[in-house]
Formats: sequence, C-alpha cells, structure tokens
Amino acid sequence: MPTPATPDPTRRNDAVRRAILAAALDQVGEVGYAKLTIERIAKTAGVGKQTIYRWWPSKGALFFDAFLDLAGDGEAAALPDTGDLAADLTLVLTATVAELNDERLDRAMRALHTEIVLDQTLAADYATRLDNPMRELKKARLRAAQDAGQLAADVDLEVAVDLIWGPILNRWLHRTAPLTSEYAEQVVDTALRGLQPRPTSGPDR
Amino acid sequence: MPTPATPDPTRRNDAVRRAILAAALDQVGEVGYAKLTIERIAKTAGVGKQTIYRWWPSKGALFFDAFLDLAGDGEAAALPDTGDLAADLTLVLTATVAELNDERLDRAMRALHTEIVLDQTLAADYATRLDNPMRELKKARLRAAQDAGQLAADVDLEVAVDLIWGPILNRWLHRTAPLTSEYAEQVVDTALRGLQPRPTSGPDR
Repeated sequence: MPTPATPDPTRRNDAVRRAILAAALDQVGEVGYAKLTIERIAKTAGVGKQTIYRWWPSKGALFFDAFLDLAGDGEAAALPDTGDLAADLTLVLTATVAELNDERLDRAMRALHTEIVLDQTLAADYATRLDNPMRELKKARLRAAQDAGQLAADVDLEVAVDLIWGPILNRWLHRTAPLTSEYAEQVVDTALRGLQPRPTSGPDR
Repeated sequence: MPTPATPDPTRRNDAVRRAILAAALDQVGEVGYAKLTIERIAKTAGVGKQTIYRWWPSKGALFFDAFLDLAGDGEAAALPDTGDLAADLTLVLTATVAELNDERLDRAMRALHTEIVLDQTLAADYATRLDNPMRELKKARLRAAQDAGQLAADVDLEVAVDLIWGPILNRWLHRTAPLTSEYAEQVVDTALRGLQPRPTSGPDR
C-alpha cells in the first residue's frame, strides 16, 4: 500500500497518456496522418518514443485510443426516444453531421477510418469496442419504434441501420456534396418512407 | 510519318504502361498498400523507377489509373433497364457485391479508397473521372423509373443513389457482416419500400 508521500503512479500515467493522445490529435491536424511520426507525437507530448511504444504497438492503435477518448462518451449514450422516430433520428444525424464538419474530428476520423479499412486486426478491435456497441444502441431505438408500430415488423434492423447511417458516412468520406443538416433530414425521411410512390389513398404519415 | 521499319513508340509505351499497372495490382496483393514501394512495382514490371515517375506523380495516382484500367470499362456502361427497377438494381448491386468479394479487386479498391479519403486532390480527380460519371448513369436509370411512375416524383435522386449504393459500400469497408447477394436484395427492397409499415389496404408493390 503506498504511503501518502509516494506519488500516485496511476494518476501520473493517466496524465502522460492524455498528453500523448492530445498530441496525436493536434499533430494529425498539422501534418496529416501519413506524414505524422511517433517521434513527432512524442516530442509534442514531451515524452520519449519508448513511452509511446510501451502502450501502443502502432500509430493506428494510438489513434484508435485517441478517437475513443475524443468521441467515446458522447457516442456511447442511448439514442433519444421521444416517441417520434423521425425527429429523434434527425436529431442524432444532425449531431453527427456537426461532428464530421468539425475539422479536428474530421482529420482524426479520416486517419482512423483509413487504418480500419486497411488493417483487419484494427477493424476487429474497432468493431468490438466502438462499432458494435453503437450499432446495438441504434438497433435498440429502432426496435422500440418497431414495437410502437412506427417501423415495419419485417424490416431487418441491420439493413435499417445501414440505410439510415450509411449515406451520411459516404457523403462525408467521398465529399460528394456538402454534408448539411438538410441532407440528414432528407436521408431520414427517405429511409423511412422509401423511394417508391406513396399510395395517395393511404394513411398520412 | 514513321517508316514501316520504325518501332511504334505509342504501342511500346502502352505495353510498358500496362505492365506497370498490372505490377501495381499484383504487388498490392502481396505486401499491402502501405508497404508497397514504387521500387518494388518497377522491379516487378521490369522498368526503372524513373519510368514510373515520368507518368505518375505518386503511388496514389498510379493506383488510381490501375483501378480505372481494371474496373473502368464495365463500370462506365449504362445501367440495365428492363422496366423492372427492383430487378435491375438487384442485378447491378449483386454484380458489385461479386466484384468487392474478389480478393484482387478488394485490395486495389481499399488502397484507392484510403488514398481518396486522405488526399483531396485525388478525391477531386476521382469524382471527376469515375464517381460523377457513374453517379450520372445511376441517376439516369432512376430518372427513367421516376418517369415510369416507379419512383416517387419528389424523391431527390442524389439521396436515392446514396440510399441504394451507400449500404453496400459501408458493409464492404467496415466488414460489419458478410457482403452477400441476399444483402443486396434486402437493401434494394428496403430502399424502395421504406422502413415504415406499409398500409395493408394499399396497392401491392
């Protein structure tokens, strides 16, 4: 048991860890991911390279933790459920659009994204630690809507998640057009109502 | 005007160019994109590094051309129009799924994709030379369906394209689940009919 005079190694480690993660995010904005070296991150954080390699096997793994740190808490929360599915989804997607339009987050997410696409080990880690938990929260909200009769009973929830969130991710990745809250609204509306003509005699939505 | 005895420099250049593009695709399968050097591609193609740098400013630009060469002709064709939108889209998406499940094309496309996500110049080039022309062909097919009353008149065709093609791209990129032709069918069906419950008294689809 440490005496009161002993510095707390856990707390000191945590401070160093946070300094490294912050340095990684700052520097990716300066030089871009490809040219960013562990050496540069170490120098910015005021630590030795060995300190970084002790905790992270690669630049990709470091960025993965930096990203979890940056976006993790907000993302892990359950989706809002006011009873109005379209309004709730629009709120969530609009927040996502705002995040993706934030330059610092944009660069960090592009860096992480490309690592995930190329590195199967990191992709598995990403799926386990971030994507799957978020996907379960999205599906939980859609399941509640299904129970409330706002979503067709025979809709596959995996496909539903892909249809609602996929277009936002793609437009961001490929910069095909500006990523706006109006687009988020259109995606939600179109995903819910479908592309086919609505029967004019059917019930109002 | 060249005499019959003069070797045709255009044809020779073209053969060398094709050898380099083939070497790039072969070698990305061997060592992955990150570790692949221009030197290795040059050696495989049996040319000097300078020959490659004379034509392509970067590894990304070289892969871009390799990819255009590999997939270009097939992709640039108009979408089928049998009058049955769902069947035509399912056919097209099933073909895309098969391509993405081809290991050689998968690796080349991942390499290209990550370059595009990180490099704005290449992204603009990709949009101009490949993505926009393909997007116009997709929109042309959807516009025909709109004229035939199979697609709602007020649907934004950009959103429609994103909703139909986005989920396939995402599942491939993130390997969230197997990319199958059944999934392609589900995406088409859900995008066309929407996630909301269908009125039981409405017309059959």
